[in-house]
Parts: sequence; C-alpha cells; structure tokens
Amino acid sequence: AALGARKMEDYGRFLALLASALLVGFVSVILSLVWVFHYREGLSWDGGAGEFNWHPVLVITGFVFIQGIAIIVYRLPWTWKCSKLLMKFIHAGLNTIAMILAIVSMVAVFQYHNAKNIPNMYSLHSWIGLTALIFYSLQLVLGLAVFLLPFAPVYLRAVLMPIHVYSGLTIFATVIATALMGITEKLLFSLSNPSYSESPPEATLVNCLGLLLVVFGSLILWMASRPHWKRPLEENTKVLRPTGGTPEGTEVESTMTNSSNADKSDLRINTEAARKQNLKFDEAGQRSTM
Amino acid sequence: AALGARKMEDYGRFLALLASALLVGFVSVILSLVWVFHYREGLSWDGGAGEFNWHPVLVITGFVFIQGIAIIVYRLPWTWKCSKLLMKFIHAGLNTIAMILAIVSMVAVFQYHNAKNIPNMYSLHSWIGLTALIFYSLQLVLGLAVFLLPFAPVYLRAVLMPIHVYSGLTIFATVIATALMGITEKLLFSLSNPSYSESPPEATLVNCLGLLLVVFGSLILWMASRPHWKRPLEENTKVLRPTGGTPEGTEVESTMTNSSNADKSDLRINTEAARKQNLKFDEAGQRSTM
Repeated sequence: AALGARKMEDYGRFLALLASALLVGFVSVILSLVWVFHYREGLSWDGGAGEFNWHPVLVITGFVFIQGIAIIVYRLPWTWKCSKLLMKFIHAGLNTIAMILAIVSMVAVFQYHNAKNIPNMYSLHSWIGLTALIFYSLQLVLGLAVFLLPFAPVYLRAVLMPIHVYSGLTIFATVIATALMGITEKLLFSLSNPSYSESPPEATLVNCLGLLLVVFGSLILWMASRPHWKRPLEENTKVLRPTGGTPEGTEVESTMTNSSNADKSDLRINTEAARKQNLKFDEAGQRSTM
Repeated sequence: AALGARKMEDYGRFLALLASALLVGFVSVILSLVWVFHYREGLSWDGGAGEFNWHPVLVITGFVFIQGIAIIVYRLPWTWKCSKLLMKFIHAGLNTIAMILAIVSMVAVFQYHNAKNIPNMYSLHSWIGLTALIFYSLQLVLGLAVFLLPFAPVYLRAVLMPIHVYSGLTIFATVIATALMGITEKLLFSLSNPSYSESPPEATLVNCLGLLLVVFGSLILWMASRPHWKRPLEENTKVLRPTGGTPEGTEVESTMTNSSNADKSDLRINTEAARKQNLKFDEAGQRSTM
C-alpha cells in the first residue's frame, strides 16, 4: 500500500511536469504567432517578410515543440500497454514531421534572402542551425535503419542506443540554442525607433518567448533523463501499471530521486533480483529508450 | 586478460576524449584572445571597449572552459586513488574560480555600458546570462552546504544528488547557448564595412570559435553522462585501477557503450553481484558523482 502510494505520487509528478512542458511549448507557439501577426508582417509565401516569418513559427512548432514531444513519447505511462513497435513508429513519425517543418522553415529563409539579395549562411546561427538539421536528419535515417527496420543485429542496437539517446538530446539542446541566436539576430535587425536596446513591447514579448524555450528544453531534458520514468521492459508490461502494483521488475525505485526517507535497501534488493531475472531477455533489443 | 584489454581500450577512449576536450577548450580561449587583440581593442579596465573585451575572454575561460573541467573532474581515473573529499574540494574550487571570473566578466559589461550610456539588461542574452549566473551561484552554495560540509543527512544527499547533476549539466549547456547569443550580438554590433553579412575574416574566426564552444560542450556532456566512466565507490578504490584488474564492483561493463560483440551476460551478472555487495555501504553518501 505504501509502495502503491509512492508510485501514484511519482506518477502525479510526471503528469505535472508533462502538463507544464505542454503548456510552455503551446504558449511558445502562440507567442511566435503573436510576434509575426501582431508585431511583424504576418505569414505569406512570396519572397517577402511574410515568407521569412514562417522561419520562427515553423522552427518553434516543429523543431522545438514537436521534437520535444517525440523525445519523451516513450515515457508516457499510458502508452506502456501499446506495443514497442507502435511507439517506435510514433517516435519516428513525430521526428519526421519535425524534420519536414524544419526543412520548410529553412527554405523560407533562403528564398527570402535570395529575393532581397541578402547573403546566405554567413552567421553563426546559420552555421549551427544547418549543422543541427543535417545531424537531425542523419539521426533519423540511422535510427530508422537500426531500430525500426528488423535487420540490425542486437549487438549493433545495443552499441548504438546510448549514442542515439545522447545525440538526440544534444541535437535538441543545440536547436534551442540556435533558436535563441535567431531571436537575437531578428530583434537586432528589425527593431529601430525604438531599437532593441530601448526595450519596446515586441522586444519584451520575444525575450519572454526565448526564456520559455529554455524552460521547455529543461523540462524535456529532465523527463528524458530520469531512469525511473523509463518505459519498462516488454515482459513486465502487464505487471507495471502506473496505478500501483509491486516493485518487481521495475526500476521505479532503483534511483534516488523519487522519495526521501524510505528504506532504500529492501527496494534495491528487489530490483536487483528483478534485474537478474531480466538477464535472460534481450534487454538491448527491447529497451530502446535507454 | 581479455577483460583487462577491454578496460585498457576503454581507458584509452576516455583519454582521447579528454585530450580532445582540453584541446578544443584551449583553442577556444586562444581564439577569444586573437579576437580581442588582433581584431578588437585589446584588454583594459577603463570603461572603454577594452574593458568590454574582458567579457568574452573571461566567459570563455571561466564560465565555459573551467566549468567544463570542473564537471568531469571526478571522472579522471588517476584521481580515483585520491580521497573523495579532496576531489570535492577540487570540484568546488574550480567552480568557484569559474563563478568569480563570470562575475568579473559581467561587471566589465555593466561598467562599459554605463560609461557609454548603453542600457543594461535589455537583451535575451543578458536575461538568460544573468539567470544562468544566479542559478550557478545557488548551485555552488547549495552544493557546498549539502555535499561538502558534513552536516547534511545521507537521505538529503541522496535526494539532491540527481538534481545537482541535472542542474549542473543544464546550466553548463545554457551558458554555452548564452555565449553563442553574445557572439551573435557582438559581431552584428561591431562589424561594419564590411558588415557581418559580408563575412570578413573576423566573422569567420568568431563563427569558428562559436562552433568550437558547441563541440567542447558536447564532449563534456558525453564524458559526464557515460555511467561506466564514473568514479567507483570508495570501498572499491583499491581494486579499481584504470590499468586492468577484475570487473568486480565496477560498473565499467554494465552499460552498452564500450564494446560491440562481447558476451555481456556474464559481465553483467558479475556486476550485479558486486552491486549487491555494495548495498551494505552507503551509496548515496559516497557516490556524489551519480
């Protein structure tokens, strides 16, 4: 009963973080729309400023928000009863949507630059942004080939999974850093009388948007890096419901984040025993969320 | 023998990454000096441009390079024979130096702005940069109070350690993102005839500096997040030398990054057994690098 209560509490904490991330991500998208419609020239596809404006809107919607959701999709407890294959399709699908939106957002900038005779690819923002998009696409293709298609041997999946996770989180953080550079550039370019340094309302609004992107990234990275919120191994799926059950076979209690003064040793021994049981299963092949 | 060879190989890999990070960090500091001395007004402390120039130099030296080294200092295998307390002092000392340099770097900007009647704290760069410095200082004070001073109970250390690690890495990534925004601002402000968009040599040099900061951050985050490069628990210190030995009591073989086609099961069972042994020790109190 005490265990069940603790797991419920942990589940509630996950839901609160998820709701915060969704809210912050959603508000970021709204703020990007307020920015381009209320303060800028709106959206269009004619080589003018309205075409450029697709760039921040699509980057924030696709390359930040949707990518962030794609990262944590395995962690949603109510998906643990779905097959791993289905979840891989959703993870890959969301990342594909994000990639397409990111590509369209860059096409918009190149067309705008070309129409206005502004050089392409001179800024640090463009260098890092294009590099991030290339790595993101490579990550997607490699992830599909190794983890979704059934051809890769288990040892290869095992070797590549930590690299896939690390690359994914690093690219995500880099994309947010690049968005912050883009915001800085755009405010310096487009604000004059009053300029950026005179803090007009547009500057304050977009600075807040930048802060929200950092908060969104931090929430996603926290959720993605807590080991006790991992999707359980396949064999345990039936035992492991977020609404309680026994600690056997779960790593929920094996880290030190989720409760303060409980006696950890007993739990840990249970966990160790459960892990040993799991050794006969192919951990690497099943657990692609490591 | 095979095990010893694999551990040596893993040790070599760590050294190669460490050497790369040190090289990239060192070159970044050099490039910041080339920037301010060759292309800008050098260094001074008189309210002029030379005082501003301390800002990028001190941020890159202290807030990026020294903070990065502070993060991975527990992972250096030759320090594993040193006491954990000594290593905590080194970790806290390096972070204190980084904090002081970051504070001085911000004082330089405020004095420069005030001397030139430029408003303070209007840009996203300044908002996020100051927030990062405040969180960094809080992290340092809290880390000292909880992990270095002997008063905090073990359960508090256990609860706070994952948060300390997550905050540290997130602040580090945010500092690098802020540096990239600062580079963008400074190049847009100071380049004219030729402007930033005409890609003069200064722009190319400083863009490369920005790329190096991203590479440095990525290397540090990789080294900091590999579980098999953690400092071993105290009781195992004598058994665990980087130059070989048995796998008992180490987590070196318990993750999937370090070798491709070995039979993992045996190693893992050894590791599990060793972990069980460790349960009687106070993991949380000793292992502050989790």
